[in-house]
Amino acid sequence: MALTSHPLAGKPLELADTLRSGNAWKIRLACGLMGLPLTRRTFDIVKGDLETDAFARINPWRQVPALLTPEGEWLAESQAILWYLAEGTPWLPGDRLARAQVCSWLSFEQTQHMHAFAQPRLLIHLRQTARVDDPAMVAWRAIGMKAAAWMDAHLAGRHYLVGRAPTIADVALYPYTSMAAEGGYDLSAFANITAWLARMRALPGFTPLMETA
Amino acid sequence: MALTSHPLAGKPLELADTLRSGNAWKIRLACGLMGLPLTRRTFDIVKGDLETDAFARINPWRQVPALLTPEGEWLAESQAILWYLAEGTPWLPGDRLARAQVCSWLSFEQTQHMHAFAQPRLLIHLRQTARVDDPAMVAWRAIGMKAAAWMDAHLAGRHYLVGRAPTIADVALYPYTSMAAEGGYDLSAFANITAWLARMRALPGFTPLMETA
Repeated sequence: MALTSHPLAGKPLELADTLRSGNAWKIRLACGLMGLPLTRRTFDIVKGDLETDAFARINPWRQVPALLTPEGEWLAESQAILWYLAEGTPWLPGDRLARAQVCSWLSFEQTQHMHAFAQPRLLIHLRQTARVDDPAMVAWRAIGMKAAAWMDAHLAGRHYLVGRAPTIADVALYPYTSMAAEGGYDLSAFANITAWLARMRALPGFTPLMETA
Repeated sequence: MALTSHPLAGKPLELADTLRSGNAWKIRLACGLMGLPLTRRTFDIVKGDLETDAFARINPWRQVPALLTPEGEWLAESQAILWYLAEGTPWLPGDRLARAQVCSWLSFEQTQHMHAFAQPRLLIHLRQTARVDDPAMVAWRAIGMKAAAWMDAHLAGRHYLVGRAPTIADVALYPYTSMAAEGGYDLSAFANITAWLARMRALPGFTPLMETA
């Protein structure tokens, strides 16, 4: 659903990200799906890029993503950036209750879902400092499987999380759910999630985590 | 800033809460400040009220708050409820960037702030299963003091977190910041936070956690 008349069309958008951050991928996904060009300023955590004084001016919490808005302000927190990008577009429903339901899923992702998927992926796959069967990883997956079971139940009979069209709720939940296997998860029993992930990948403008030449 | 013409004026609003939940207090604060009557359905965690099948239909995550909206739907996650209540009122700014900044503070509260204040309060003050100086409590406060320092720096020269008037960002940050002492915090060195807390308490319609006869 690329938009011919996005409220931000033609305005400069710059994203502070890292190569493999799932939270930052959400923003690149959103911009791709909305047809908004985005300039990346990619930092390297291993090189200490996020610990510099310069980065503290971008985000004092030393996290990506942050978006440099056309107003010249750095905006932090992935869900705030998604909201900023989606207002006035079909990616946020027109109905008050539906918008609040989108907000509820954005909050769910940050508080009940994201860490349970991101931490095993970080430690097992990216840093390779934990093994799949380490008790801490098993504990994270117990939490994440509960979140996945709830998503799967909710997606029964639905194509997207809120309403009949994709919203930023789907964009927010996609990255860490889709990368679950990197943290030792097996979500194959969740047929509704599997179908929803495929539906998201098929959307025009879908952007993979790593863009290969 | 009670509103003569709130978009939800005259519509039934019912809150699932507990007596002392800071997350649920946010919603009672918001409704008081907006002049919206609210019916409470108060549950008792100790009695197991949140573990019943009936409560799972209110919120499968078994958390308060949840709001029964005039549409007849239970809405979970405090920040989603605040957003639902505030749209179309001065409690959410009219400007796209300012609204996103409010969203960023709501996310900050849930991801960087709330647990660091809520956990020591729960274990030291409510359950009395931890002591002020337990290493885990000291560790939580180290995180919370970082969040408080950032809030205090941001509030320098400002009356409220976003813009010149109070918003739901202030409503969201008020409860757990104001109850910090119950978790062994001493925030007295943060003069901007102290002044902001007093400013919030002085707003017309301010609702305390416990309403005494």
